[in-house]
Amino acid sequence: MNFTIQNVLIAAVDDYATVDVQVVDGAIAAIAPSLEVVGTPINGKNKLLLPGFFNAHTHSSEMWQRGVIPPLPLELWLAHLYDFAPLDIEKVYLSALGTAVETLLSGGTSVVDHLVLIPGQELETIATAVRAYKEVGIRAFVSPLIQDESLTAGIPSGESEQNHEPYFRPTQATLELMEEAVRQFHRPDEGISILVAPTGIQLCSDALFEGCIELSNQYNLCRHSHLLETKAQEKLAQEKYGCTAVEHLKRIGYLSDRTSLAHCVHLSDTDITILAETKSTVVHNPLSNLRLGSGIAPILKYRQAGVNVTFGCDGASSNDSQDLLEAIKIGSLLHNVTDLDYQQWITCRQAVEMASLGGAKGLNMADKLGSLTVGKEADLVLYDLTKLSLLPRTDPIGLLVLGRPTNVVESVWVNGKQIVADGKVTTIDVDELQQQLFNHSQWDTNRKSQSVREIETHYRAVMGLS
Amino acid sequence: MNFTIQNVLIAAVDDYATVDVQVVDGAIAAIAPSLEVVGTPINGKNKLLLPGFFNAHTHSSEMWQRGVIPPLPLELWLAHLYDFAPLDIEKVYLSALGTAVETLLSGGTSVVDHLVLIPGQELETIATAVRAYKEVGIRAFVSPLIQDESLTAGIPSGESEQNHEPYFRPTQATLELMEEAVRQFHRPDEGISILVAPTGIQLCSDALFEGCIELSNQYNLCRHSHLLETKAQEKLAQEKYGCTAVEHLKRIGYLSDRTSLAHCVHLSDTDITILAETKSTVVHNPLSNLRLGSGIAPILKYRQAGVNVTFGCDGASSNDSQDLLEAIKIGSLLHNVTDLDYQQWITCRQAVEMASLGGAKGLNMADKLGSLTVGKEADLVLYDLTKLSLLPRTDPIGLLVLGRPTNVVESVWVNGKQIVADGKVTTIDVDELQQQLFNHSQWDTNRKSQSVREIETHYRAVMGLS
Repeated sequence: MNFTIQNVLIAAVDDYATVDVQVVDGAIAAIAPSLEVVGTPINGKNKLLLPGFFNAHTHSSEMWQRGVIPPLPLELWLAHLYDFAPLDIEKVYLSALGTAVETLLSGGTSVVDHLVLIPGQELETIATAVRAYKEVGIRAFVSPLIQDESLTAGIPSGESEQNHEPYFRPTQATLELMEEAVRQFHRPDEGISILVAPTGIQLCSDALFEGCIELSNQYNLCRHSHLLETKAQEKLAQEKYGCTAVEHLKRIGYLSDRTSLAHCVHLSDTDITILAETKSTVVHNPLSNLRLGSGIAPILKYRQAGVNVTFGCDGASSNDSQDLLEAIKIGSLLHNVTDLDYQQWITCRQAVEMASLGGAKGLNMADKLGSLTVGKEADLVLYDLTKLSLLPRTDPIGLLVLGRPTNVVESVWVNGKQIVADGKVTTIDVDELQQQLFNHSQWDTNRKSQSVREIETHYRAVMGLS
Repeated sequence: MNFTIQNVLIAAVDDYATVDVQVVDGAIAAIAPSLEVVGTPINGKNKLLLPGFFNAHTHSSEMWQRGVIPPLPLELWLAHLYDFAPLDIEKVYLSALGTAVETLLSGGTSVVDHLVLIPGQELETIATAVRAYKEVGIRAFVSPLIQDESLTAGIPSGESEQNHEPYFRPTQATLELMEEAVRQFHRPDEGISILVAPTGIQLCSDALFEGCIELSNQYNLCRHSHLLETKAQEKLAQEKYGCTAVEHLKRIGYLSDRTSLAHCVHLSDTDITILAETKSTVVHNPLSNLRLGSGIAPILKYRQAGVNVTFGCDGASSNDSQDLLEAIKIGSLLHNVTDLDYQQWITCRQAVEMASLGGAKGLNMADKLGSLTVGKEADLVLYDLTKLSLLPRTDPIGLLVLGRPTNVVESVWVNGKQIVADGKVTTIDVDELQQQLFNHSQWDTNRKSQSVREIETHYRAVMGLS
């Protein structure tokens, strides 16, 4: 469907312009004042049009445990998460829908789902998430979360002898699974991409990383991974490789201009230079890094070194939301306390560019997405500037980034197809989704994790906690 | 109006209980399962009832500049703020309404408005804010912002000779003004209290603080102030007093169990002990402290030392919102990166208690407000747990504190009077308010502050910025 948004505010250099935007065959055809109306006219008055943002790292099924995991660092939090994660296919479907809806209603048009797979139903899990994202119409980068070591291997051993259970699925079987997923579901032109996404150095062998690199080269896939989220992982990398995780990933060839790395909290200056040289992208997950006490990622340093940075919500049980505007706000403000010189602080316009073009770059799609540019695909978000949370009128982008915008997303298009109108998702029944989420859950408020109890003593000793 | 909320979830020790809550003559009359219905029955099924939170530090009129001030530290941000602050009485009225509405819809039933006064119209400014808060029905602690030194005096001189313009109103005149405000507007029983609130050591003489102490003693007023928000203020206190600001405020007698102090970012361990000994309250403004790069207040240390801590949004141009749930979330998560030991981290239930009972304590009203206790005044908030942002069902308080709750406040009562029903403020017309905020403003996106230009060189030199 073609359409023309009339009299809409867009960002111009240091200012705004009021223009018409023509969308033809899913792409931006023209941007200028007083254009001829092509297709359906859309009233853009008192509205702001921005390119869609990227929710560049999340785990959709964590939605089932949001709000319930107590204050714990990543390694113990993960043990807690896995103790209470009886996923089934229906839950995978519903939480993918929920993740898509919350992303859309906070300005996102793309989601990178580092998808937790149900053992024994791996392809079905992927098929289900793909189905959910297609139904909603959001652009999805489905990144099956794979590993080949068991959970306890992710904690440094320190001085102690540790034995870990072998992982239940051999490395080669995991790589075959990935290849099958690519054959069945990798359809970038239809808005669904598959990424290779080993969970991280803490739980993956070199063989798994190298197999993923091969798949990436063979099928032109983007690469994703967690990287140095915690102090414990920094220690573990030294134990495992005798060098930093970044140095090791560079050595085995995982870093590239289509590699995006979630968290990147504990990197050295040399590591930062490597990320810049390899043109890797950092996905900043500020809420999760605070929630799990992982630390403040050195985002200002990344920007100064020329590393591309974008934002993610991370999974909803370490955030515990999927509001991308919240991640953008906190992810840009947080760093003001790390550098006294305010001239280095991230401006609102920079934050918007990081969330849009930064996301596109990290997924090797900067030629197609991430900005209001004639010829690019029409992944667009229209914000209603007459809502209380965006008033009084001052600077639209300032209000959007620094405020707490509520109910402000009026319309969303992905590849030119409208999927939010009048503030409501039009492709699925959100009331029904709420009812299903309600029905599939129950108040469950006092969980005690057996696994946390089992590994806590060792964790505290290794991390020097008395 | 009497009412009984039936079958509602409330927090019990480490768990929840489903109860009925009777409210009679503005107070909580009974809390137990299966009570007789007194007055109007209210359906509490799938809802959570909490005591109202306190927005324990804000400046309502800053709403007019939210979203528009660039990334600057407090001292330069203030210069920018004052360059573009042509307040009038109508704007004071509208921004007080807006502040009240946003506070209510994010779980607050009380607001401490450190109110910027229009020169020459001081009492009218106060009268106007009081009128707005009475119309909405929120409980208001109006704290006229007073000082007796001019803005540039708030920046440390360093090695240099600095001359500052004298402040336009003499200290004695300001104190007389305060006394008149107390006579006219201090009506705690009607939900309006006046506080003495010198802006802070950076812009106030000892004479002003001492005059405020006298008024506080004479009229039984709570005391409020900013305290050590920035590194610059820490330096300034040493220049001005030869000791820390806390030591000085203790010496002159300003600290007490009815003194609440906003920010408290740069305190020494000795200072913290003094706050604990004097039973002073810290108002934590996490968003503002990030936005202005002020730093991370040592909130875990305060809690360990037994200092009462509660939350504020701070003015909307340093936040740039008035969403109390956002301040509570970030204000509790933020500290996880300051202490590796997760056993010290703030739990969701602790955060709720800080926001409710902590606020009441800081305003010397813990016997009347801040918890669901029979005999206390009915300042209550009912949350709808069937909204998408609070699903799936896990832990209601966890979802509320850690999530990004949207449209979840279903009903609010202050002193037993319902002022929000079905998610809408019932006492004023919010659509009309939006229209007025729109009409009284215009897109204004590229401001350059003359004052910032004038003081920036000196600021950068004193702060060691090249």
